[in-house]
Amino acid sequence: MKKGNDTRERLLATTGALLQKQGYFATGVQEILKTSETPRGSFYFHFPGGKEELACAALQDKAHQWQDFLEERANQAVTLPEALSNVCDALAEAMVRSNYELGCPVATTALEAAATVDSIHRICSDHYATLAEKIASRLRAAGIPESQTAVLSTLVISAVEGALLLSRAHRSPEPLHQVGASLRNLLVMTATPGSKKHF
Amino acid sequence: MKKGNDTRERLLATTGALLQKQGYFATGVQEILKTSETPRGSFYFHFPGGKEELACAALQDKAHQWQDFLEERANQAVTLPEALSNVCDALAEAMVRSNYELGCPVATTALEAAATVDSIHRICSDHYATLAEKIASRLRAAGIPESQTAVLSTLVISAVEGALLLSRAHRSPEPLHQVGASLRNLLVMTATPGSKKHF
Repeated sequence: MKKGNDTRERLLATTGALLQKQGYFATGVQEILKTSETPRGSFYFHFPGGKEELACAALQDKAHQWQDFLEERANQAVTLPEALSNVCDALAEAMVRSNYELGCPVATTALEAAATVDSIHRICSDHYATLAEKIASRLRAAGIPESQTAVLSTLVISAVEGALLLSRAHRSPEPLHQVGASLRNLLVMTATPGSKKHF
Repeated sequence: MKKGNDTRERLLATTGALLQKQGYFATGVQEILKTSETPRGSFYFHFPGGKEELACAALQDKAHQWQDFLEERANQAVTLPEALSNVCDALAEAMVRSNYELGCPVATTALEAAATVDSIHRICSDHYATLAEKIASRLRAAGIPESQTAVLSTLVISAVEGALLLSRAHRSPEPLHQVGASLRNLLVMTATPGSKKHF
């Protein structure tokens, strides 16, 4: 039983890492089996639905780990503006350390397949909705009016996801640092009385 | 000669559309040949470097068309804040019309391959640098101080690219509309004396 769980965990971890690095279509069953050193029979025993079922489970795991990582970094800051720039700096550091291979673990697969594969769409959509709710709740706690939290949390996620893309495209941490600083300043400005109406 | 050019153009258009829809790895030579109705010999005559050479040329073409499309939409507005929300609304419309298959023509391939394929990295990086320069020049023309234009144009591109991703993930135009409105308000606020120091 233990061995079966180990195999399942190994398949999930390997596939999650491959999805984050190269996306859904480049990640074939052959590569998953080879990288995780799993016999084909064990793979289909744990994931009778094949690659799509495994990819969905792995994407879900990665999404949860990513949410935990972001929350942990955000919690290290005292204020919300500081939390945002901390998160962006941590993402920049992870990007450089991985030679620009490790960005958002969901984005590549979302762009490739969310429009056409329903199961992938649901996981990606849930992930971004969860992130948005976490950010909105922090915005509310920081005193941003309820009427602005949804729009502002969409802007924050969009800007960070876009900066992760630019960072990979340019092979440079600079877009993440710039966007982190911009979002920090934007939140400071938004929390300033008189500017609130703008968001 | 004309026929040869037609074949080349057809290969470029087909490949550009497939890259935009599904990315680099899902787009195989077999599918390109079938969709463009091109014999394998003609393909290798025009692109002796194979899929990578064709994908790079197609990506470059698509990037230029995309830049033209964005400029055209932006030019229909009188003010820069309005231009930004116009562009986001046009992108939302294109997204809905294509069943969420047609987002940024470069992003999927950039996330998949910019970290590992040098030729792809160069084209993606050039594309986003060109977009950033176009936006920065509009910001300068709108009176935003030079010291803020680079950071602000990175924020604009990041937010729009991220909104295109969220829009595909959620299969909804809402993130693009929200980000368009946020960026419009942000620019209005940034151009207001006294707020300028924030960016």
